[in-house]
Amino acid sequence: MTQNIAILGASGYTGAELIRLIATHPSMRIAALAANSKAGQSMAQVFPHLRHLDLPDLVTWEEIDWSGIDLCFCALPHKTSQEVIAQLPAELKIVDLSADFRLRDPEAYKQWYGNDHAALAQQEEAVYGLTEFYRDEIRGARLVAGTGCNAATGQFALRPLIAAGVIGLDDIILDLKCAVSGAGRSLKENLLHAELSEGYNAYAVGGTHRHLGEFDQEFSKVAGREVKVQFTPHLLPVNRGILATVYVSGEAEAVHAALAEAYAAEPFIEVLPMGETPSTHHVRGSNFCHIGVTGDRIPGRAIVVAALDNLTKGSSGQAVQNANLMLGLEETAGLMLAPCFP
Amino acid sequence: MTQNIAILGASGYTGAELIRLIATHPSMRIAALAANSKAGQSMAQVFPHLRHLDLPDLVTWEEIDWSGIDLCFCALPHKTSQEVIAQLPAELKIVDLSADFRLRDPEAYKQWYGNDHAALAQQEEAVYGLTEFYRDEIRGARLVAGTGCNAATGQFALRPLIAAGVIGLDDIILDLKCAVSGAGRSLKENLLHAELSEGYNAYAVGGTHRHLGEFDQEFSKVAGREVKVQFTPHLLPVNRGILATVYVSGEAEAVHAALAEAYAAEPFIEVLPMGETPSTHHVRGSNFCHIGVTGDRIPGRAIVVAALDNLTKGSSGQAVQNANLMLGLEETAGLMLAPCFP
Amino acid sequence: MTQNIAILGASGYTGAELIRLIATHPSMRIAALAANSKAGQSMAQVFPHLRHLDLPDLVTWEEIDWSGIDLCFCALPHKTSQEVIAQLPAELKIVDLSADFRLRDPEAYKQWYGNDHAALAQQEEAVYGLTEFYRDEIRGARLVAGTGCNAATGQFALRPLIAAGVIGLDDIILDLKCAVSGAGRSLKENLLHAELSEGYNAYAVGGTHRHLGEFDQEFSKVAGREVKVQFTPHLLPVNRGILATVYVSGEAEAVHAALAEAYAAEPFIEVLPMGETPSTHHVRGSNFCHIGVTGDRIPGRAIVVAALDNLTKGSSGQAVQNANLMLGLEETAGLMLAPCFP
Amino acid sequence: MTQNIAILGASGYTGAELIRLIATHPSMRIAALAANSKAGQSMAQVFPHLRHLDLPDLVTWEEIDWSGIDLCFCALPHKTSQEVIAQLPAELKIVDLSADFRLRDPEAYKQWYGNDHAALAQQEEAVYGLTEFYRDEIRGARLVAGTGCNAATGQFALRPLIAAGVIGLDDIILDLKCAVSGAGRSLKENLLHAELSEGYNAYAVGGTHRHLGEFDQEFSKVAGREVKVQFTPHLLPVNRGILATVYVSGEAEAVHAALAEAYAAEPFIEVLPMGETPSTHHVRGSNFCHIGVTGDRIPGRAIVVAALDNLTKGSSGQAVQNANLMLGLEETAGLMLAPCFP
Repeated sequence: MTQNIAILGASGYTGAELIRLIATHPSMRIAALAANSKAGQSMAQVFPHLRHLDLPDLVTWEEIDWSGIDLCFCALPHKTSQEVIAQLPAELKIVDLSADFRLRDPEAYKQWYGNDHAALAQQEEAVYGLTEFYRDEIRGARLVAGTGCNAATGQFALRPLIAAGVIGLDDIILDLKCAVSGAGRSLKENLLHAELSEGYNAYAVGGTHRHLGEFDQEFSKVAGREVKVQFTPHLLPVNRGILATVYVSGEAEAVHAALAEAYAAEPFIEVLPMGETPSTHHVRGSNFCHIGVTGDRIPGRAIVVAALDNLTKGSSGQAVQNANLMLGLEETAGLMLAPCFP
Repeated sequence: MTQNIAILGASGYTGAELIRLIATHPSMRIAALAANSKAGQSMAQVFPHLRHLDLPDLVTWEEIDWSGIDLCFCALPHKTSQEVIAQLPAELKIVDLSADFRLRDPEAYKQWYGNDHAALAQQEEAVYGLTEFYRDEIRGARLVAGTGCNAATGQFALRPLIAAGVIGLDDIILDLKCAVSGAGRSLKENLLHAELSEGYNAYAVGGTHRHLGEFDQEFSKVAGREVKVQFTPHLLPVNRGILATVYVSGEAEAVHAALAEAYAAEPFIEVLPMGETPSTHHVRGSNFCHIGVTGDRIPGRAIVVAALDNLTKGSSGQAVQNANLMLGLEETAGLMLAPCFP
Repeated sequence: MTQNIAILGASGYTGAELIRLIATHPSMRIAALAANSKAGQSMAQVFPHLRHLDLPDLVTWEEIDWSGIDLCFCALPHKTSQEVIAQLPAELKIVDLSADFRLRDPEAYKQWYGNDHAALAQQEEAVYGLTEFYRDEIRGARLVAGTGCNAATGQFALRPLIAAGVIGLDDIILDLKCAVSGAGRSLKENLLHAELSEGYNAYAVGGTHRHLGEFDQEFSKVAGREVKVQFTPHLLPVNRGILATVYVSGEAEAVHAALAEAYAAEPFIEVLPMGETPSTHHVRGSNFCHIGVTGDRIPGRAIVVAALDNLTKGSSGQAVQNANLMLGLEETAGLMLAPCFP
Repeated sequence: MTQNIAILGASGYTGAELIRLIATHPSMRIAALAANSKAGQSMAQVFPHLRHLDLPDLVTWEEIDWSGIDLCFCALPHKTSQEVIAQLPAELKIVDLSADFRLRDPEAYKQWYGNDHAALAQQEEAVYGLTEFYRDEIRGARLVAGTGCNAATGQFALRPLIAAGVIGLDDIILDLKCAVSGAGRSLKENLLHAELSEGYNAYAVGGTHRHLGEFDQEFSKVAGREVKVQFTPHLLPVNRGILATVYVSGEAEAVHAALAEAYAAEPFIEVLPMGETPSTHHVRGSNFCHIGVTGDRIPGRAIVVAALDNLTKGSSGQAVQNANLMLGLEETAGLMLAPCFP
């Protein structure tokens, strides 16, 4: 049975990526598209790569008739998202791609995002959207909070290791390299081609990136004690892809075994043979995550490298995967697209 | 009913692109993969982005058991291709992606490619693979010759105009910009990242590019007289995409009307509204071709711009489209993937 | 003797390029830097790549003390430039990099730029800044109008051919590919890395680009009759470089000879051996222009390809070259930097 | 007085970079260029960006007349370099850019490079070429061993910290991102534009990169005890630039102070204000190194980020800097070129 889908925030990159994925999804149909700043325009104007699709024109989210909508993806900026979601029908199934419902503790939310939360009721019922670890809760959820793209990458590398007790918890270092689409379609000088291409840099150095809120929450929960990682993101001159290089204390074999076991049945997580390392080239445009483990020449140290596409597995692909579960569909429906290489 | 597919030359970019497309094709199944230089390796070794697929290991083409194979894609280098195809089973359906069977006249072949043709019988039965213009012949063909990627782009822009008689035939200029994957996975100095990125250049200037053989053959055939165009390809620091900027004498309105009419029912060719221009960004990774028409400030002159992805609509997507016809499948099966942007 | 230099518009790319060149200029010293929107900031904040230089902080142009300034580079946006220059000291030597003083005819200016000119007195005295063709006038000029970067490239390819009478004047086609820095440091969606990289497109198709005003003025002047070319610029995912592919009717040998003769003594223009084609890779970051000529397979047709760096020879390098002449310095002073490859 | 310079290995990227720098050097003149595989060719053929220079044609190194040569840059592959240098005149001043003379201990050399050293006498007299730390020895040296480009970057970040005793020595992590020109002009599949652009990956993970030999040697020497760091290089789709993100235990203020003090008088090393982070964009094409320090939210942890251009400060610029010292010239001569941005 075809499910009717609405997308709020359809003029951004995660919105466009949702449409790209749903375009070949066997059981979803786009019934409404909203983008308040571009309401009235066609998708062919806003995203010419979607011009072959028969899509509804953009409207404001207030104009949407929610009767008949089975699920809504909310790809709005954080803060806006909570304000809008507070006003949507109380029974509507929602996958939110913003940061607004990721943190369980309103205080932690305020600490990282700077404002009081404006939709506390919804926040309370939200389920954290890291599918592989919250599958059962997501299946029954009304509101799922998509994870941060960096947060997803780091957790894929580390959660099974913390759970299995095979690494030290006090010296984890997460050096992460992220593509520019992670910053969205916003007009900032450092996102211009002339500023970004042909070079790279670290940013939010020293533990100030907001995705640390998710790492703290989730790693501490898995460990049963407080875990704080060091996390440095870097901005790379590439459009899609996150590579996390994670330094841990532990035996490489045990690290590899814990990951291999945790993901043995997962359709989207590929643990490479011991000693091989992944590349963002090989997951581009897909919902797959590749993870590699290597031991260091220094005994008792291991390196875990994880790669995924920030727009797909890191946000919109994850969102569709969660929606599939919420709608009782096959979890992989519409998501088996092979990576686009070269 | 699932069709069993063999691919020869699976370690090159067009081979990988065939696998990417077939991975989500509803009626094709990859039964054999050959790459003589890498026989014995797994596809995960040769193309790690395909590691999630359950694919046969690479073998030599001589090792393939052809019983049970419904269709073979031949993605070998030109000259090798004709030698191999001459030895394949006489009834086997083949889509060849090389240059070997594109030119009808063996003399023209020798002129452009420098050697005598080694498979004249097969050459005679081959059908030129520009689907939109040879659909009926392709449906009944045993051997289809995929077009050059540049040749396809130029023909999509020009064939309807020549056929409709709306442009002059003696002053056509085709300035074409091509991505580097068109040159294949070959180890040449000018294809290195350090040599190619951050710059661009023309090549094969002055009418020496081999795809001119196809232009001469096809345009003269459509016109019923000899037509020779000026054609300058440029190599751009991008992995996928061809943009052809075509300068013609003629009225822009008539030019636009001829294209709009010719492609009105085509699922993969989008003629943009008058005055809009396409971009390779918006067809990347897809089987779509976007075409725009603009009149010049100089009366009687028009510019046609066509964009497609050289690996998809320019070669492997076209090949799957042709195979669909040859196998009695839906022409668009497996090919409706939306472009991957950004 | 060291010349004191002021730069207005120092926070843009052409401003930064002027500083880069002057940094190693033997006879120029930067005495004042203005950028009204960023007044009060240091150059290290605005352009960290210049942090090693001992530069004055940014001020508003109104704050500059003009006594002691020998020459002012004006790198402001067009329209702003004419308003500011009208208020600068009447004796001050100025090289303007904007479009404001390029067109001799105020009507033509209004036609292409849409507004009445606000500094007609200055416009009248301005000399067109294409150094190789206006050297003597520039030497004695007070105000020199830097050319458009595309306009410079096209003129380097075509002026000697029109002057020598070796090409037809009614079918010239100028297909030009330009790097993104030509669009400046402005916050536009299509200039974002995620939008521009990995693809390319034509723009201002059909004869609407403003640099046509310069082509019309200059080519008609050289020819002694009206000359209108067809001109299509393309935006490429590269930071620096313009490549012009020019299609002309004429004998390639005569074309090559006319160029070789015209530029025999020029320090910055390199005419390649017959049949070779230039690349933007090989002029990046330098004041050099490479030009190649090839005959076509169609008799009587030739292709001229010219490459230069839009920020250097196309604007700021040209500006320094002109300033050298105006100040009685060696024309090549500070400009012999070799291209930066790879 | 002009010094006559020979360059062996002039057809590679470090050779071309040497020529680029010497092109505007006030006291050096290129007297001989050797590249055995391309002997007989002109530099315009091998590197068209150098065509404006009046350079000798390429010869084999055996053909060079050494009388009159003041200094030789040897930019040959490692192993070849030691074989050639063993045969050069015993008094000739040499700056070697290969790995052959970096390691003091022949056993360490064999361990990292796999072969016995073939020029032990020369190895013994060689001085390690990290100018800022070996300035006096270099001034009097006959043979200077240029450092690895990664090795230079890591040492600029760490040497003053180890010397000052402000960081722990047993948990240093060096996550390094390197541009592709560091791999040279070699024809390898992973260096192709189509393979490398639009993605990135770690390599030599786990302590296998040869530059670790230099780190071990130098850091242990500075510390007076064995120091082993964890070092993971990453290959990025950019032509120039290295960014090292270094994780250390220590107080950020003390770390910043140690760096600021160590480099206070250095012309090429810029320590940024506390909390700012450098970018490879801002050192491209120059001999500058930018270093930033930030404290982490975790007490007692700091992050040092260092950026330089691998071809300039990381190899050929360093080589010219050393040659300046060896020849009694101003250390900064020819090296004050500002970075090329954008």
